[in-house]
Amino acid sequence: MRTHIVYAHPDNGSLNAALRDEAVLTLEGLGHTVTVADLYAMNWKAVADYDDFGPTDSERFIAAAGEAWTNASLAPDIKAEHEHLLAADNVIFQFPLWWYTVPAILKGWFDRVFTSGFGYGPTHDWPRFGDGVLKGKRAMVIVTTGAAEDHLSERGVNGHIDDLLFPLQHGVLFYPGMAVLPPVVVTSALGMDAARYTDTVKHLRERLETLTETEPIAYRKQSEDYDEHRRLLPGREAPGTTGFALHIAR
Amino acid sequence: MRTHIVYAHPDNGSLNAALRDEAVLTLEGLGHTVTVADLYAMNWKAVADYDDFGPTDSERFIAAAGEAWTNASLAPDIKAEHEHLLAADNVIFQFPLWWYTVPAILKGWFDRVFTSGFGYGPTHDWPRFGDGVLKGKRAMVIVTTGAAEDHLSERGVNGHIDDLLFPLQHGVLFYPGMAVLPPVVVTSALGMDAARYTDTVKHLRERLETLTETEPIAYRKQSEDYDEHRRLLPGREAPGTTGFALHIAR
Repeated sequence: MRTHIVYAHPDNGSLNAALRDEAVLTLEGLGHTVTVADLYAMNWKAVADYDDFGPTDSERFIAAAGEAWTNASLAPDIKAEHEHLLAADNVIFQFPLWWYTVPAILKGWFDRVFTSGFGYGPTHDWPRFGDGVLKGKRAMVIVTTGAAEDHLSERGVNGHIDDLLFPLQHGVLFYPGMAVLPPVVVTSALGMDAARYTDTVKHLRERLETLTETEPIAYRKQSEDYDEHRRLLPGREAPGTTGFALHIAR
Repeated sequence: MRTHIVYAHPDNGSLNAALRDEAVLTLEGLGHTVTVADLYAMNWKAVADYDDFGPTDSERFIAAAGEAWTNASLAPDIKAEHEHLLAADNVIFQFPLWWYTVPAILKGWFDRVFTSGFGYGPTHDWPRFGDGVLKGKRAMVIVTTGAAEDHLSERGVNGHIDDLLFPLQHGVLFYPGMAVLPPVVVTSALGMDAARYTDTVKHLRERLETLTETEPIAYRKQSEDYDEHRRLLPGREAPGTTGFALHIAR
């Protein structure tokens, strides 16, 4: 079993760093081969630009990206992450929630690694949302928040954490075919005391120990539940369902 | 009237670049003083790290960020954006939708510019969601998508564009007090023909000409509609409302 951890936090003395170390120890204890892309430590290039592509004939950005994929001329750091992903059974994304999504350095990992030809394709009939290059792999988010649990609850002013994570978990991780497990969410992360830290580590270990048997979020497959215009087929949802919940089979 | 445009696209021959130029011309024609932060052209530093802070006594990242704000020792490029924001009446964010949110370079603009002490504060009672440092200013998103309109509609597999933009428009722009106008959304942006381009420019001009009179999205103010745990007060919403829609007064 191989697990790749994509990790983004600037402070190696942080709660996130401690939880990353616990995760690696736990997974290695379970016999996994663990690789870590520690984006800050790697000085990961966050910005997708033409320097990623090598020489191309295309001036337009997405066409040039697709050409670089076809020519296998993408930057070496992108190719290395492709290899890690293709080799992995599980991919874990760990980060602090900054402005209700991932830090820029991790967004840049998705922008650059999930590139045209690998993560998505140039046509609307590209296999996606349940099918794709990473089908058969499991993904899990580990996220810390400064906000308290109430603030991220159904009626919380920030919006529900599941909705805030939808564009990432559904739009990025499920898109190329990964099965997405419910996230590990650590709220009120700033200045956590020892008792809560102990509980948090215990919960994290349990989630990692059950990684291969936990039921994924039941996102609907594009190939099964949507019409040719990629709209949810009539009557699939419980009456009154709206918003992102439409895309989860209950 | 001063308008600051924060713009992120790597290709100066793109649709986005053409729309940016149209926006500047239109706003200048209306008498606005226009400034543009062209993030790719500026080689904007996307990654928030300790180099942004100058010397600090704090090892923990957010504490160090807060100290840098207090000491006025933030990096000059961050301070320059603070000045543009404080001087502006309107702030426009223009970008292509990459993986259902902003490109990393623009996420990094938010991570670095909306820093502790400016964009948010260290306590849960910091004025936010309708109050804050940018209160009285108007924000508007101009976003292009490769996806077609159907894919981003209420039942579209991508999720509704308004929900996808909620973490940005509500969680980032409304948070420090800006009034957020409905976005300008340009779908099926790849390979747009001349007729659609003409219509798109016409629509963009109309939205810019009505910038100061357009009704903002009716996001609920934290100070008015939420309890002390930042949960929406009972009975404020129409019966059956769920998800992000809870936070918009109809």
